[in-house]
Amino acid sequence: MSTGRLFGIGVGPGDPDLITLKAVARLREVPVVAYVAANGQPSLARRIAAPHLPEGKREINVALPMHPRRELAEAAYDEGASRISTELEDGCDVGLLCEGDPLLYGSFIQMLFRLGHHYATEVIPGVSGVAAAAAAARLPLAWRDHTFAIVPATLPREALLARLDGEGGLALIKVGRHLEKVREALTERGLLERAIYVERASTADQRVLPLAEHEGDQAPYFALVLVGPRRPG
Amino acid sequence: MSTGRLFGIGVGPGDPDLITLKAVARLREVPVVAYVAANGQPSLARRIAAPHLPEGKREINVALPMHPRRELAEAAYDEGASRISTELEDGCDVGLLCEGDPLLYGSFIQMLFRLGHHYATEVIPGVSGVAAAAAAARLPLAWRDHTFAIVPATLPREALLARLDGEGGLALIKVGRHLEKVREALTERGLLERAIYVERASTADQRVLPLAEHEGDQAPYFALVLVGPRRPG
Repeated sequence: MSTGRLFGIGVGPGDPDLITLKAVARLREVPVVAYVAANGQPSLARRIAAPHLPEGKREINVALPMHPRRELAEAAYDEGASRISTELEDGCDVGLLCEGDPLLYGSFIQMLFRLGHHYATEVIPGVSGVAAAAAAARLPLAWRDHTFAIVPATLPREALLARLDGEGGLALIKVGRHLEKVREALTERGLLERAIYVERASTADQRVLPLAEHEGDQAPYFALVLVGPRRPG
Repeated sequence: MSTGRLFGIGVGPGDPDLITLKAVARLREVPVVAYVAANGQPSLARRIAAPHLPEGKREINVALPMHPRRELAEAAYDEGASRISTELEDGCDVGLLCEGDPLLYGSFIQMLFRLGHHYATEVIPGVSGVAAAAAAARLPLAWRDHTFAIVPATLPREALLARLDGEGGLALIKVGRHLEKVREALTERGLLERAIYVERASTADQRVLPLAEHEGDQAPYFALVLVGPRRPG
């Protein structure tokens, strides 16, 4: 008996209609779906995929610990990979659901590191949260010879500042509790007035506003800040 | 009578099954579709959308001149925008088809500049060619606090070199006739051995190989080169 295949299935940024035809087809075929649930919340990827997920799938919920130390998160991924591996060894295909795109900050990457050398893998790319945020803001990210950069707001202040140089478009992701640091760094670079804050893009709870008008110093983890290119294309 | 709406419809990277449910629904609804055809070739976006495009749509083909000087391209966009505007003034919705994502190097951006202030616009994000290339290569682009940058190979050599610094993931796009410059710049930065060449990702003609094994100095316009993050996440 041959082993199963591992699919990284991008389910898109939040709107269940922003999933691809290919992802929907694969969701229907696989006998097992897996997903990562962080911060004690139900898996967002599972919720996005729900309208397209037939009943009767076996499900593997990889629950990351709250406020994880790195070792605890690694252990949770190890344990999840082990459960996925059991299904693959039994000859069952497993689809790992990822919000956005699996290879761009997706939890699939952790499973690829652990299982990719042992099992056949296939990735179904998805619409990223960054693309959905740009769509919500109707903000062009880059054209002609602009560079475009995605920068995690989790970086230390100096590293963040260094990455705000240049002239291309920017997306600052994982804003969450780093909102104040982001605001200060953009202000220091003279970019605050150009920055657009986008929260939960493509969902019913979507918010889009100039960052300068955003009050408070907290944001959801899935908030991001966009800055368009700083020169004409 | 109210004016029509302009939709920027991302049709994804090439595989017609990598279009979203939302894009398919919108394609069915709009009475008019528009698309840009460059380099004397039929529109790639039109070809991707073809399986999902009902017969009987009016179509606006914005043909960019071969080897265009900037002014000629601008004139072609102006003329296309004028034809789209005529439909919008008649109260007809127009869907502009874009390969990949409309706001990331998409031709929709040129139409948004020309028409976005006058008409209601909506963007339907799509799977980018970069995401499809990463999927084809099964190469994680960024995780945890990595930066990820998209860099057009059309940049002059020194600008290209400057953008190869840093530690995050990279996608060099629009490689085409700039392949030799890309190879030299990556070699100079010690990145050649890590670089993956991907051509026509997600299509039947897809090619994936280490850039170091790619012979010849020419590539299609839609070729790109990926480099994974240069430090652990």
